[in-house]
Amino acid sequence: MEKVSFADMPCSMANTLDIVGEWWSLLIIRDIFIGINRFNSLRDHLGIARNMLQRRLQRLDEGGIIYKYPLQNGHAEFRLTEAGVALYPVLLALASWGDEWLAEKPPNLFIHDACGNAVNATVVCNHCGEPLGSHNITQEPGPSMLEPDASRLRFLIKELKAAEK
Amino acid sequence: MEKVSFADMPCSMANTLDIVGEWWSLLIIRDIFIGINRFNSLRDHLGIARNMLQRRLQRLDEGGIIYKYPLQNGHAEFRLTEAGVALYPVLLALASWGDEWLAEKPPNLFIHDACGNAVNATVVCNHCGEPLGSHNITQEPGPSMLEPDASRLRFLIKELKAAEK
Repeated sequence: MEKVSFADMPCSMANTLDIVGEWWSLLIIRDIFIGINRFNSLRDHLGIARNMLQRRLQRLDEGGIIYKYPLQNGHAEFRLTEAGVALYPVLLALASWGDEWLAEKPPNLFIHDACGNAVNATVVCNHCGEPLGSHNITQEPGPSMLEPDASRLRFLIKELKAAEK
Repeated sequence: MEKVSFADMPCSMANTLDIVGEWWSLLIIRDIFIGINRFNSLRDHLGIARNMLQRRLQRLDEGGIIYKYPLQNGHAEFRLTEAGVALYPVLLALASWGDEWLAEKPPNLFIHDACGNAVNATVVCNHCGEPLGSHNITQEPGPSMLEPDASRLRFLIKELKAAEK
């Protein structure tokens, strides 16, 4: 399964999943955010096999999400890069979806320090602040999507719009 | 790998990944959003093996994300449930992260119909509207997290806060 790469698809979501979308990877990142950042702690907390954890950490390192930071005692811990830290809102959005659609009561609360409330992450437009969803977004080929992918996408979106009418 | 289940972890992110976190699953959902929703179209567009696609679709169906809708011509298409449609903002957040950290130029543009701009999805607090990140969120055990997980999490967060000082 892992021989397939999503890196060549003209889609930033696929490219993101190429780095963080492997089974376990986002959970490793989640754990590092709460301070579980040593190899053995991650293994124990996730119940993951050593060789699997090793491979996932290596992929996250190569993908620029984490790096290994040597400690004075000869051990090392894994830390998030700037790109890794920037994944936190994405994890919050995943958790909020799960809270809404899977959980009766939330297993975790995420308190927004500034306003003191437990948050449900909301995804909004960076220009006007309105909540975003498939009903108010129209996808189109961007500057780095080549033909024939661009024509294919335009055709699909045109069909979708026609079906909505 | 897939014998492991994240469903029992006291974490809505893990529970979400238990349904949509398998390699390919989010790409299948992405494709259904743009109207690629027949078995053969998905197989061709994703370049995925039939049996793998079959398993992923079945898991998404069982997880309440998609359902099979019979067409008059004897074929069927896959449609998103309400919970599936609610994943769109999460996909946008993944794509926006990839646009920012992986792409020189975005392969896709997501135009917000109301304001006409290409969006970068921003994750904000549903109470006060401020952008969220690991720097302004404090995680704590929620109503459905049991001991000893709750004590463990409280300890970890306390250590994190102490280290920040």
